[in-house]
This record gives sequence, structure tokens and C-alpha cells, in this order.
Amino acid sequence: MPVTSTASMEGLEARLRRVEDRLEILQLIASYGPSVDSGAARETADIWTQDGSYEYSVLGDTPEAQEVASLNGRETIRRMVEGDEHQGLIGRGAAHFMGIPAIHIDGDEALAVTHSVLLLRTPETGENVVARFGANRWLLVRTAEGWRVQRRTQSLLDGRAAARDILHAGTGHLGL
Amino acid sequence: MPVTSTASMEGLEARLRRVEDRLEILQLIASYGPSVDSGAARETADIWTQDGSYEYSVLGDTPEAQEVASLNGRETIRRMVEGDEHQGLIGRGAAHFMGIPAIHIDGDEALAVTHSVLLLRTPETGENVVARFGANRWLLVRTAEGWRVQRRTQSLLDGRAAARDILHAGTGHLGL
Amino acid sequence: MPVTSTASMEGLEARLRRVEDRLEILQLIASYGPSVDSGAARETADIWTQDGSYEYSVLGDTPEAQEVASLNGRETIRRMVEGDEHQGLIGRGAAHFMGIPAIHIDGDEALAVTHSVLLLRTPETGENVVARFGANRWLLVRTAEGWRVQRRTQSLLDGRAAARDILHAGTGHLGL
Repeated sequence: MPVTSTASMEGLEARLRRVEDRLEILQLIASYGPSVDSGAARETADIWTQDGSYEYSVLGDTPEAQEVASLNGRETIRRMVEGDEHQGLIGRGAAHFMGIPAIHIDGDEALAVTHSVLLLRTPETGENVVARFGANRWLLVRTAEGWRVQRRTQSLLDGRAAARDILHAGTGHLGL
Repeated sequence: MPVTSTASMEGLEARLRRVEDRLEILQLIASYGPSVDSGAARETADIWTQDGSYEYSVLGDTPEAQEVASLNGRETIRRMVEGDEHQGLIGRGAAHFMGIPAIHIDGDEALAVTHSVLLLRTPETGENVVARFGANRWLLVRTAEGWRVQRRTQSLLDGRAAARDILHAGTGHLGL
Repeated sequence: MPVTSTASMEGLEARLRRVEDRLEILQLIASYGPSVDSGAARETADIWTQDGSYEYSVLGDTPEAQEVASLNGRETIRRMVEGDEHQGLIGRGAAHFMGIPAIHIDGDEALAVTHSVLLLRTPETGENVVARFGANRWLLVRTAEGWRVQRRTQSLLDGRAAARDILHAGTGHLGL
């Protein structure tokens, strides 16, 4: 963190840009929940780059049965939002609740790490359940449209090493 | 996002103000949970403008029985916090947990969209429940006191269209 | 919030620093969950100052049996992360989910108030529980390494006055 008081215009502008980058990435990640839970397929997909990918753990009947789904490209992400499974979730009541991101920016690339929780309502009883919670690694790139997600990887936090590896990427390099 | 390096003082100041606006709104929304869960009635009310309003879904015995409560003006919001129902919640243990906001600023007005979750402790068993979760639309205005909430609308995420309409307002217009 | 348009370089730099301070503190707090849930003992400890402390409510069999644990210094915090109890939590699946902080900065000291929730997976059933939720007060200081936590106090939100006192510190002084 610079402490000089002999700031140049160029120096101030560079610092301001880092701040803007950070807030724009926070904003992009904050828009995921509203987009996916309102069923806004195009807006959800547009959080990614044209060929961006989203990999996530799929719940099986047993922990061992869990697999990884991989969505590649905006068109595929859009179809996931429009699909029966996702529409079923938001029809019964769903919140894809995102944690505050730890963000590391390196020029035109960035890494963000967040927790996420899926809350679901049980229509029959009116009870709410924590259906799943996981670790997310977002690899972002600066594009002509602004920051976009090149690759998001989500892993369930159920003791598996993959989830802890993701979280570990969000530690350490503190500061802006 | 400006990429010019020939920044003028006026240009830098305008960009810095947008950043400050965004952080001030984040701060205002972040102060809601601490205010309402500590029973700080005046501080909770002061998040709104003098005549600001707060509309929210009221849980009924069945989803169909849910209605909308409407609090109008700081005095009414203050009395809600001091009322028996809210005091009962915080007496047993309550967290009004707020999601990260998607914020869109347009001059002296702003819109923020957040998820929210109400966690409650069951004193008899010590168990915690996700009592409700919803979508929130915050319409904010710049006042002489700083940013304040003109109108907050919360709708339960139980499949109803109103909640998805609220969330949809938080999608799309990405960037700062 | 300054509204002058006759901004000086020094004035802009001071405002930018306040923004950077705020974002750096947000980042520091955002890194806690990823650090502790990935079992990164050193990175978790380094969120604190060398002699920083972490006090938190310990769950007892009854609310009355709850006590306060106190970890003093990085070495002690590091050992907590490496200890059997914490390793057991992350082995079954745990998320220390943090709320958005209300931050008040005063020169080289700062105060942040957040909600926090501990989500745990029950390996036998695959069900997830809200194991605890609480109020957190983070007292931070600016060091040569950047902002670090001097003292974090967490109290369960189960109706006890201590938790509400912590939350109350996060109310009121709105604005940046």
C-alpha cells in the first residue's frame, strides 16, 4: 500500500484503477445469485466469457457417487439455467447465496475465492434446508466488455481435498 | 471502465466519487444486520430516509397465507424494532444475514439487490433453523446525510414471481 | 463525503487511501474463511498481528454451559487450526461463512462488525446443519505488513447481551 504523499496523476490513476477492478469483480460475482435465482439465463451466461467454463460437483446418492459436471461456453450455461432441473429449483424456492470474495488481481487476470451456499425451500413442509455448500474458484479476465469469468470451479465442502485446494488459493497474498 | 492515461483531476475525482458512492452503499447495507439484531431501533430506522419504506413478506401458515407488511417512515421502522415480535426474535437468537449487494448507481439514485437469510435459534433444543430467505431490492437516494434507503422491498424466495422480479433487477448492467 | 470539485492532489490521495484501507480490510476478513476451512494454519494466523487475540464462545451442552475460549498470539491460533478439533470439522466438511462487514476506520485503527455462520456436514446422513451463528467484532491496526487483526471477539447470537453489544458497535457511524 503506497504511503507516499508526492502522488503523481499517473500514480493516482493506477491506484484508482486497481480499486475499480476490485469493485467491478465484486459486482460481477454479486450478480450471479440474482441472475441464476431469477432464471435470467442470458444474464447468467454473460457473467462468463464467450467460451468460459463452469465446473461443479454433482450431488450423488452417496458422497462417493458425486461427480463433476462441466459447462463449456455461454450457450451451455444458458441452457443449464433454462433446463428442467434448475427451473425446478427456483420454482420451489432457491437462493444461491455467495460469500464475500477474496480477490487477487494480476494485470488483466484475476482470481477470486468464495464460499457459496444453496438454500432450498421444501414446498410440502415449508421448511428450508441447506442443500449444499462449497468452495468456488473464479478465474477472471479483463475483456473489452469488462471483467468476465473464464473458469469457475466449485467443489462441495464435504472433506474432499479438491475443495480445500480451491479455498487455499484464496489465502495468503493479502493486501490489494 | 476508462483506460485513458491522460487523466484529468476532474476525471479522477468523478471516478473516485463513484467508488466512494459504491462503498458507502455497501456499508449502509452491511449495517442493517448489526443494527436490527442488536435491537438498535434508532440506528436501524436511520438507514432509511425520513419517509422511507420497508415492505416485506409476512410468513403465514401456508404459502398462500403470506401477506405483505409495509412500514412507512423512520418512526414506524423504529417501532417495529422495539416491538414484541422483533424483540422475541433477538431474545431467542437471530441473525439477519445479508448477501453481497449488486449495486447500480445512477447519479443521486441507486439500486441494490441482495439475498437475505434469517437464522433463528430454537431455545428448547439449541438447534438453528433457516427461518426464511428472500430477495431484497433497495432503492437508495443521496441525501445531505449521505446515501439512505428510500424503499426496501423484500420477498420470500418460495417460487413466487415477485421475488424473481426483484432479483432480476440485480442482473445485467454489469460494470461500475 | 466531500462534494468539492476543486480537488487537490493531496485531497484526492487521502480519499483514495481511505478507499484502499476499506477494501484491504474487506479483503483481510474475506480471507478468513478460505484460510481456516482449507486448514492453512500459518495463513490463518497471519491475519492477526503477532500478538493478536481471538476470543470466541464455546458451545456447551446447555446455553448456560457456554464459555469463552481465548487464543493469544499467532502461534496459538496456528495450533488451533492444526488441532484435532478443527481438523475434525474440516474433515467432515465445514464452511466458516462470513457476512459483509460494517467497517469504521479511524486513522491507523479500524473496527469491523460481521455476522458469521458455521455450516457443517453430517457425514452419516449427508445433511447439513447450521452449527452456530454469531456476532464478530474485529479490532484492526495498520502495520508495516498492512492491516492486521489485533483482537477478534465472537459471541454466539443466542440472546446473550454480549453478542448484541458486539453488533451494536457496527451501527450508527454511517458513511465512509
